[in-house]
Amino acid sequence: MEQREHPDMSNTPVTVLGLGDMGTALARALLKAGFRTTVWNRTAAKAEALVPEGALHAATVAEAVEASPLVVVCLLDYDSVHGTLAPVAASLAGKAVANLTSGTPRQAREMAAWAADQGADYLDGGIMAVPPMIATPAAFVLYSGSREVFDTHRAALDALARSEYLGEDAALAPLHDIALLSGMYGMFAGILHAYALIRSEDIKAADFAPMLGGWLNAMAGAAAGFAEQIDSGDYAQGVVSNLAMQAAAYDHLLEAAEEQGVSPELLAPLGPLMARRVADGHGHEDLSGLVELLRTRP
Amino acid sequence: MEQREHPDMSNTPVTVLGLGDMGTALARALLKAGFRTTVWNRTAAKAEALVPEGALHAATVAEAVEASPLVVVCLLDYDSVHGTLAPVAASLAGKAVANLTSGTPRQAREMAAWAADQGADYLDGGIMAVPPMIATPAAFVLYSGSREVFDTHRAALDALARSEYLGEDAALAPLHDIALLSGMYGMFAGILHAYALIRSEDIKAADFAPMLGGWLNAMAGAAAGFAEQIDSGDYAQGVVSNLAMQAAAYDHLLEAAEEQGVSPELLAPLGPLMARRVADGHGHEDLSGLVELLRTRP
Ligand SMILES: NC(=O)c1ccc[n+]([C@@H]2O[C@H](COP(=O)([O-])OP(=O)(O)OC[C@H]3O[C@@H](n4cnc5c(N)ncnc54)[C@H](OP(=O)(O)O)[C@@H]3O)[C@@H](O)[C@H]2O)c1
Ligand SMILES: NC(=O)c1ccc[n+]([C@@H]2O[C@H](COP(=O)([O-])OP(=O)(O)OC[C@H]3O[C@@H](n4cnc5c(N)ncnc54)[C@H](OP(=O)(O)O)[C@@H]3O)[C@@H](O)[C@H]2O)c1
Repeated sequence: MEQREHPDMSNTPVTVLGLGDMGTALARALLKAGFRTTVWNRTAAKAEALVPEGALHAATVAEAVEASPLVVVCLLDYDSVHGTLAPVAASLAGKAVANLTSGTPRQAREMAAWAADQGADYLDGGIMAVPPMIATPAAFVLYSGSREVFDTHRAALDALARSEYLGEDAALAPLHDIALLSGMYGMFAGILHAYALIRSEDIKAADFAPMLGGWLNAMAGAAAGFAEQIDSGDYAQGVVSNLAMQAAAYDHLLEAAEEQGVSPELLAPLGPLMARRVADGHGHEDLSGLVELLRTRP
Repeated sequence: MEQREHPDMSNTPVTVLGLGDMGTALARALLKAGFRTTVWNRTAAKAEALVPEGALHAATVAEAVEASPLVVVCLLDYDSVHGTLAPVAASLAGKAVANLTSGTPRQAREMAAWAADQGADYLDGGIMAVPPMIATPAAFVLYSGSREVFDTHRAALDALARSEYLGEDAALAPLHDIALLSGMYGMFAGILHAYALIRSEDIKAADFAPMLGGWLNAMAGAAAGFAEQIDSGDYAQGVVSNLAMQAAAYDHLLEAAEEQGVSPELLAPLGPLMARRVADGHGHEDLSGLVELLRTRP
């Protein structure tokens, strides 16, 4: 019976440890969705502030963990998670811990191993949203680790954001999280450089924004083609502009920026990387081959 | 009468100078659209190859310019444009020159001034497409310079790609062209870094591509908000994640890459730029304020 494997936890009590901007948004989303929500925060005032909204304020971490089968953790970093959970390690046995604190793949693996040692079921999460987006359709959270925790407590997790499960390896959520954020910051660097260029001729950034947005959306489509080349290792497949041509044009692009009084510093590192790849005999291939040069381990 | 200002040039003869990959695509598009197309190329064989498709092969630049009221130029760079047109300067009087060679805002302004000295009407163009995209709905060309040329020869220009006119200053097309390409390369750098991270755990790039593409499309929406902040100079308006928080998180993002055996070199320059802006007292503001640091001239 489905019921047996994943008991109906659609209204399970939930504990939230950590009530910074994000933890507070998570606790509020649970309260709004009708979950019995126990909260704890190092600075107690932030927990007290949620009591009028229906939260149960636990005086200690131990009480908070005791209160619910699912413990959602959202603290500053993994050090604060460990510092908060280690003293109550004994009470974690049989608990489901969903740690939504940002960290690295390595940290997630280590935390999963530590949680397993305490007899807890561990789910790692990467929140792809800012606090005001929590419980809106734009937010999603990447999960990895215990499928059991994910399935059993799906209703509570879905109250926070769209939930996406990536696999049993706890490292997967932070890996995808940092990969998405890295892609975003690369794009933001390009956007900043583009606006600096536009402003160099006293044109309003807002007049240029729709064109830039449309163009980036169209060009993001190239990511799928890059992926095929990367997976096959055949970086010459379906090349339209080869790397040698792009490398030459790229130098001119940065020179043009300097001519406009715009520092090329944000975009500069791509140039030498292209040049190295061309020098290595890959000038006929596509830009995607540069991933080979980003590996620092064989 | 509308007819008087812009005589019906919907089937005007057109000359194309330069038959590299792009020039050949442009000439083909004109031929397919039924324009009487005269072609010239330094290496004559590329012109001869278009004769079976209906092109008229001019033996000299002078003959080619003579043949049509509209002269489309698509050569390697501005030096080759000048080298090609200067010897026939006298025959340019009264001609419409549409120069679709890639260059910088400064080069476009200089070319416009030179063309004006020869009595030619000058339109500069930036092609936002690769050759196979020409005459497909995905392609567009940014134009600036003579509005007269743009309006009069709109039919021929529209046969190449969607045409977008930006203003009388010839520099506008290359400025927008390089700004769009710069934005794209920033995004591509982010995509490459993201794939390198994903590959560090032996996950297929293609499995990650749809998530990355969707995320970048969603995050490109931030460009509009950045524009408002940049235009107003109020970088604190509507901040969700302030720069101080982002700067701290960014360091961790690059450390995580190193932990995964991925070189952070493509994304590295954003870190010190954030740190400088925070140190300058702008930690409460948004990322968009970094444009201020990209200006190398007051
Ligand atoms: N905010 C976002 O946009 C966003 C987006 C995605 C992911 N995240 C992640 O969500 C997590 C929380 O972010 P936030 O925005 O809520 O941060 P925040 O507002 O700075 O809150 C930090 C929280 O951690 C607690 N804390 C810090 N050090 C501690 C320690 N040594 N022991 C116990 N508790 C400690 C703080 O308690 P006190 O109240 O006592 O200081 C507070 O509850 C972070 O990992 C962040 O990367 C945030
Ligand atoms: N290809 C693209 O994806 C793309 C996209 C956007 C914009 N563009 C721009 O379009 C322009 C042409 O690009 P392309 O791809 O066609 O380049 P290409 O295939 O390398 O062709 C270069 C053309 O320039 C001619 N040329 C070079 N030096 C010359 C000189 N000194 N005198 C006379 N002619 C000379 C070449 O003639 P020969 O045949 O005699 O060598 C050839 O016709 C460039 O400005 C490029 O940036 C290209």
